[in-house]
Amino acid sequence: MDATPGNDLSRRLNAVEDTVTLCGGMPLALDSGASFGPVDIAYHTYGHLNADKSNAIVVCHALTGDQYAVLPHPVTGKPGWWSSLIGPGKVIDTDVYYVICSNVIGGCMGSSGPRSTNPETGQPYMLDFPVVTVADMVRAQVLLLDHLGIDQAFAVVGGSMGGMQVLQWAAAYPERVFCALPIATCARYSAQNIAFDEVGRQAIMADLDWCGGRYLLEGKNPHKGLAVARMAAHITYLSEAALTRKFGRKLQGKDRIGYGFEADFEVESYLRHQGSTFVERFDANSYLYITRAMDYFDMPGEHDGHLAKAFRGTPVHFCVISFSSDWLFPTRDSQAIVRALNAAAASVSFVEVQSDKGHDAFLLDEPEFHDTVRGFLAGMAERRGIAAKTEGR
Amino acid sequence: MDATPGNDLSRRLNAVEDTVTLCGGMPLALDSGASFGPVDIAYHTYGHLNADKSNAIVVCHALTGDQYAVLPHPVTGKPGWWSSLIGPGKVIDTDVYYVICSNVIGGCMGSSGPRSTNPETGQPYMLDFPVVTVADMVRAQVLLLDHLGIDQAFAVVGGSMGGMQVLQWAAAYPERVFCALPIATCARYSAQNIAFDEVGRQAIMADLDWCGGRYLLEGKNPHKGLAVARMAAHITYLSEAALTRKFGRKLQGKDRIGYGFEADFEVESYLRHQGSTFVERFDANSYLYITRAMDYFDMPGEHDGHLAKAFRGTPVHFCVISFSSDWLFPTRDSQAIVRALNAAAASVSFVEVQSDKGHDAFLLDEPEFHDTVRGFLAGMAERRGIAAKTEGR
Repeated sequence: MDATPGNDLSRRLNAVEDTVTLCGGMPLALDSGASFGPVDIAYHTYGHLNADKSNAIVVCHALTGDQYAVLPHPVTGKPGWWSSLIGPGKVIDTDVYYVICSNVIGGCMGSSGPRSTNPETGQPYMLDFPVVTVADMVRAQVLLLDHLGIDQAFAVVGGSMGGMQVLQWAAAYPERVFCALPIATCARYSAQNIAFDEVGRQAIMADLDWCGGRYLLEGKNPHKGLAVARMAAHITYLSEAALTRKFGRKLQGKDRIGYGFEADFEVESYLRHQGSTFVERFDANSYLYITRAMDYFDMPGEHDGHLAKAFRGTPVHFCVISFSSDWLFPTRDSQAIVRALNAAAASVSFVEVQSDKGHDAFLLDEPEFHDTVRGFLAGMAERRGIAAKTEGR
Repeated sequence: MDATPGNDLSRRLNAVEDTVTLCGGMPLALDSGASFGPVDIAYHTYGHLNADKSNAIVVCHALTGDQYAVLPHPVTGKPGWWSSLIGPGKVIDTDVYYVICSNVIGGCMGSSGPRSTNPETGQPYMLDFPVVTVADMVRAQVLLLDHLGIDQAFAVVGGSMGGMQVLQWAAAYPERVFCALPIATCARYSAQNIAFDEVGRQAIMADLDWCGGRYLLEGKNPHKGLAVARMAAHITYLSEAALTRKFGRKLQGKDRIGYGFEADFEVESYLRHQGSTFVERFDANSYLYITRAMDYFDMPGEHDGHLAKAFRGTPVHFCVISFSSDWLFPTRDSQAIVRALNAAAASVSFVEVQSDKGHDAFLLDEPEFHDTVRGFLAGMAERRGIAAKTEGR
């Protein structure tokens, strides 16, 4: 385990980057019935674990996220995806909490995934990688917590697919979670969301350079198909109102339409840019695997249709957050979670944040959202007996 | 002009299929500044034109529609796309009205489009076909009306892009339209809709078999890219509620999920089917051109930002119809049209049909929708002095 060399932010964060092989390389039993190993988990930690190990916050990332929640992304150089939320003095205060963020299994940033080397063949797994579920991702995270010697996370936090992991943490490991913040998420993935995922997968698989999944061996990259997948998905991350406000019908660097198929409109340029930058940092097969994990997420389905059964008698304290203009994970999905938690007599607070920024709002500097998380964590920290500041550092 | 040989429906409809070269082959001046010709228009007529030529209804088709509004499609064999609405004794009664439906220019069912032969080269135009607008499509339709010797259409009717044509007919040729029914449409295409179109175009152009647009010469067909474009668009034609009701998370011919990338869910199979059947009947380049025409549709933009100016003093009687769960052309788009028509002191009625079927509702047998069209046409026919039945045929 090495502290990241270098800059002030990294030092102030006490950022540590590491990759661990879980269970000494023993295979992990997966939902599919397959067992898979060795399982590597690439993760970052920020801040300091306190003496009674009560201040750990597990941060779960979304489909295209990774462990670079705070530190700049090594490929794009952009700030970490939740750097507005996490850091010294921020909502998730790294001067107070010990933050752990790991790359999900199936991902492409160092945790075991289709791009990882299969030790049996010396080649990347590609489509020989097993299909994993959100529960499998969380299984690996629990083992990471074991590795770090932490019995209970103070909080588990995440948005979108990260929120699914939060729900899974709370349902499957209630004694290991003090409080849980599922944000802009759902307990049961909808037909419309499966449909959008399927479009993305078909776009990737339609690219001849996908080579039946074996592009790494062929020296190819299905970047066009992956870019189309990203573009389609990106529309679902924004609201119609946000697109109209941000772009409307504004033209891109021209006075009049060009009567052709170059990008005339700013919204076209923006989408093309989203597609082309994404392919630099993401693996097409990982996109297939992780969207599939989301498709399969159905907590009520695993509890005889009754989500409340997943949380009966839970000691976990919940704060459920949705965004009013999110149509990918609309507020009614969060309300279904809250209703189930109420029926399970759980401790739950719920906020629908008013925002026109759509699903993406959970990644943005939305004051009402940040205030909600800050307030909930402060109350929970007091209850848990976590000092507001750890002295002597 | 030949009456279609054969079956009872065709005879009862008095169906006539024809293709006409407009203006004796003279070029048409297009919005882009280009002039293009000769322009062919493939069209169908149903019913009989009455003696004073006052009973013609122009039916305008949507993005992927064509002149096969009633007769079965020659490629798929499926009933015409508006055969639920148009026919003997139906809402648009071919025993009363003379229905004209033509393929838009830029299309691929016989009207001039990128797949047509360029007489100068003897090869298909492909991307040498000029970019056309909705106004250009309507220009060609007006010339078709000239060809048929009809001064004024009793009604112009269409949904989606068909509705844009209806608005353009009424704005640019008010004296040639007695009444107009723009359905599930807008006067200004939104950023979100441009974004979805751009995803579709990028999916097509990402397909190596698109060959820079020259696939017809290369003996290729970018069917995978076109299928992805269709799949993405198809999601926008349905509502989240309809997808949930119709498919939910139901599995396709299996008891449990397959932990792979085959279609597990019915909604995946459905989308794949939509994609694969579409490519049999549609031309990829036409998809580029027609989506571009929609992107460019901006009636307020052509009237100093004031849609009302497009209709000032109009004699046309309007019936604007939207569907409550349509998120591609939401009710607020129709309300903007109605507000402008009110500001222009036009005769306008407006109905938002309650339906959970999304944008697709305009193609379906929705009783409230059909009753609205039937009632409006009956009132207008009385006003126009069209007899409910023409005797002696």
